Amino acid sequence: MSALPADLLRTLADALGNGLRTDPGERLTYGYDNSKRQAMPDAVALPTTVEQVVAIVRGCRAHRVPVIARGRGTNTTGASVPVDGGIVVSLERMNRILDIRPGDRCAIVQPGVLNGELQRALAPHGLFWPPDPTSADFSSVGGNLACNAGGPRAVKYGASRDNVLALVAVTGAGEVIRCGSATTKGATGYDLQRLLVGSEGTLALIVEATLRLTPLPQARRAIRALYRDVDAAAAAVARLMAQPVTPSMLEFMDGDAVRLARDVGGADLPHDVGALLMIEADGDAQTLSHAVDALLAAARGDGCLAAEPAADEAARERLWAARKALTPALRSLAPGKINEDVVVPVSRIPDLVAGVQALSRSHALPIVCFGHAGNGNLHVNLMYDPADADQATRAQAAMTDVFVLALSLGGTLSGEHGIGLAKRDFMPQAVDAPTLALMRQLKSVFDPDGILNPGKLLPP
Amino acid sequence: MSALPADLLRTLADALGNGLRTDPGERLTYGYDNSKRQAMPDAVALPTTVEQVVAIVRGCRAHRVPVIARGRGTNTTGASVPVDGGIVVSLERMNRILDIRPGDRCAIVQPGVLNGELQRALAPHGLFWPPDPTSADFSSVGGNLACNAGGPRAVKYGASRDNVLALVAVTGAGEVIRCGSATTKGATGYDLQRLLVGSEGTLALIVEATLRLTPLPQARRAIRALYRDVDAAAAAVARLMAQPVTPSMLEFMDGDAVRLARDVGGADLPHDVGALLMIEADGDAQTLSHAVDALLAAARGDGCLAAEPAADEAARERLWAARKALTPALRSLAPGKINEDVVVPVSRIPDLVAGVQALSRSHALPIVCFGHAGNGNLHVNLMYDPADADQATRAQAAMTDVFVLALSLGGTLSGEHGIGLAKRDFMPQAVDAPTLALMRQLKSVFDPDGILNPGKLLPP
Repeated sequence: MSALPADLLRTLADALGNGLRTDPGERLTYGYDNSKRQAMPDAVALPTTVEQVVAIVRGCRAHRVPVIARGRGTNTTGASVPVDGGIVVSLERMNRILDIRPGDRCAIVQPGVLNGELQRALAPHGLFWPPDPTSADFSSVGGNLACNAGGPRAVKYGASRDNVLALVAVTGAGEVIRCGSATTKGATGYDLQRLLVGSEGTLALIVEATLRLTPLPQARRAIRALYRDVDAAAAAVARLMAQPVTPSMLEFMDGDAVRLARDVGGADLPHDVGALLMIEADGDAQTLSHAVDALLAAARGDGCLAAEPAADEAARERLWAARKALTPALRSLAPGKINEDVVVPVSRIPDLVAGVQALSRSHALPIVCFGHAGNGNLHVNLMYDPADADQATRAQAAMTDVFVLALSLGGTLSGEHGIGLAKRDFMPQAVDAPTLALMRQLKSVFDPDGILNPGKLLPP
Repeated sequence: MSALPADLLRTLADALGNGLRTDPGERLTYGYDNSKRQAMPDAVALPTTVEQVVAIVRGCRAHRVPVIARGRGTNTTGASVPVDGGIVVSLERMNRILDIRPGDRCAIVQPGVLNGELQRALAPHGLFWPPDPTSADFSSVGGNLACNAGGPRAVKYGASRDNVLALVAVTGAGEVIRCGSATTKGATGYDLQRLLVGSEGTLALIVEATLRLTPLPQARRAIRALYRDVDAAAAAVARLMAQPVTPSMLEFMDGDAVRLARDVGGADLPHDVGALLMIEADGDAQTLSHAVDALLAAARGDGCLAAEPAADEAARERLWAARKALTPALRSLAPGKINEDVVVPVSRIPDLVAGVQALSRSHALPIVCFGHAGNGNLHVNLMYDPADADQATRAQAAMTDVFVLALSLGGTLSGEHGIGLAKRDFMPQAVDAPTLALMRQLKSVFDPDGILNPGKLLPP
């Protein structure tokens, strides 16, 4: 049975009706996320209204019971795992698109709307919401905001934080706050909405979001560029980002990633490729070819072996096949994977990749790098066998070294996955002591009793 | 003589040497801003290092003496006027550009660098920093950040908050905090840098900024479009913002503004124009004409009397002359002006202008609207004679009604000027009580003794 006080259970049942779940089998399914971690919540709440969320938080606060907001559990850092028990608040039933205002380029949504659902609803208006994590079809807007989700398009259109105008949220004190307005400019007091984005449910539960939308480009075209080595590809990234046509995607694969995509994934790629860039332009039909030419010119240069645009959408899909083949192909290296998403200034990508290759040798583990080069945001995949205790230890040590490396290059721990549990203990290396102390104090303002997602983001 | 404790004066003199000014004549020149308000600081500090800023704040904190950060005093809200005395910290000597990194699209600057100086230093690298307030040539980057300055380009490139990557700042506790990293993506803890932008020196003093840069477009072209009435112009704004070619400027003038620019400013404009849009496209030489065509197509429609692009840069200057003639021409209406920069969702511009016209009639004062239509950020100019007590009272009442109107339309008090003293007492109408209470608590975390710019932004 649940460990919750009977009083609190009554309060929750009164507020939620059939939106309260205490059956262990049901609770279990709300205790994991894509970090593969799992913990048992004491209850699961499925609110449908802001008032219910307020009642949950106030009830839990009175009993000092943890409240863990949950979208669809696609995050990779353990941020939605209830490690201290408590109530998981799944916002899946608050899933209505409240308004789409094409003239104002904004939409007002409840947090449980799936990213992909939203995009489909926006498309007939010729609009989209830029964040495009791989999980878009099954991750929620609220979860995207909580983790500041990005994706390949962020290089041109920004991540979640760049695409939010206003939020309604319930703090850890059980107060409803309204931050921002449905306008693309604002200088009215402190910007709380961007502070809440990326705070991983540790400051407040987002219950409504006004999102900034962007007109859908009419057309897009992909370019695949092959390089002799990482340095040549990184130099091309710098050239691409320094000229006026910003690519709509700029994805990188290191030599190991290219080899895997070819040899294991079956992608059509030549041998002797040290690095690959997938570049995409978007725009309208009349100017797209000019944009492609500008990107091709920047992509070509010393060490570029080939750079070719896709002729049409089918050819584009074939070019992307190399990237798509990669994730399953990684499994051929080892059954276990630690995927970190460190970020460095674009100019330091060669140093990051060279440093990671050195770590791969010194820890005797395969490490494959690919990701969002235009933002300097690389996914570093450490491959190991979890059943081999020695390998698991080396993988953890290598991950620590990857963080130290990224920080030494002026980068930081995460570009888009967030901190959660996985990187929490590295925060003191990334954020200096006075700044971290201030973050703790800010948390206390929003959440005076420390009930919101305890143990996440900030080290204990 | 200065009212400061001798102890504090000694501390400051030791820390600052000749960077401490106590002469009344010198102090006087640091006590005003462009709000025309003025107050006498007890001393002026001209630090050159972060350590000196820390010493000032710690010394002042020990004695509970106000600390007012100052850029170049161009703000319009009284935000840099030392109404409670204390030390004005002018950051004008911390004016070095520390680094420009074209490959990373970022620059690291001290706060006293002038916006215009920075743009000139960036131009040879083919880059610019988007905020472009009218004051750019003589306002500082630190001041721009403190007020979240915008400008016409914000419609495409964002305001100050959208173009900052990292900050170093000194809190009211005298602690140096380091927020963000020189990367365009980040999900490492709470985003303090965007919280500090727009906080008007009430949370911390910005002592170093890492700015996000954008490639300079190669070319630009202006379009002037004339409309029968405001509704027709506003419908065109909505069409312009809903199609994929985002204009690099989208400025609006109401019928009174057009008439003034023509009759008083001598601008070449026909009669019977109810509203005007100045639209600008930028891009590269090859695609600019297509962008202009797309904007022209969106600008034209029901109620559009004429829409013509400038043939070249000289013609562009002639088109902009109407806008430039406007500000001096306003003086022909009355010697006094209250210029508010409310912001509303773009679709509500017609309601805002119609409401303002009704207020002009009911308060029997000329009110002229123009400004940044693409962001819904209009400058509402209430014209009156300050020597006429009755007019001055009506002007204040009309201003209050303008704020109420903007809020009722889903907008907010300020798009880019900020709150300062001028709009502080309207904050409870714009921000609900729990959110405002939270803002006060946040202020206490950064500034436990309330010494940083007291009396600004938050109502007493």
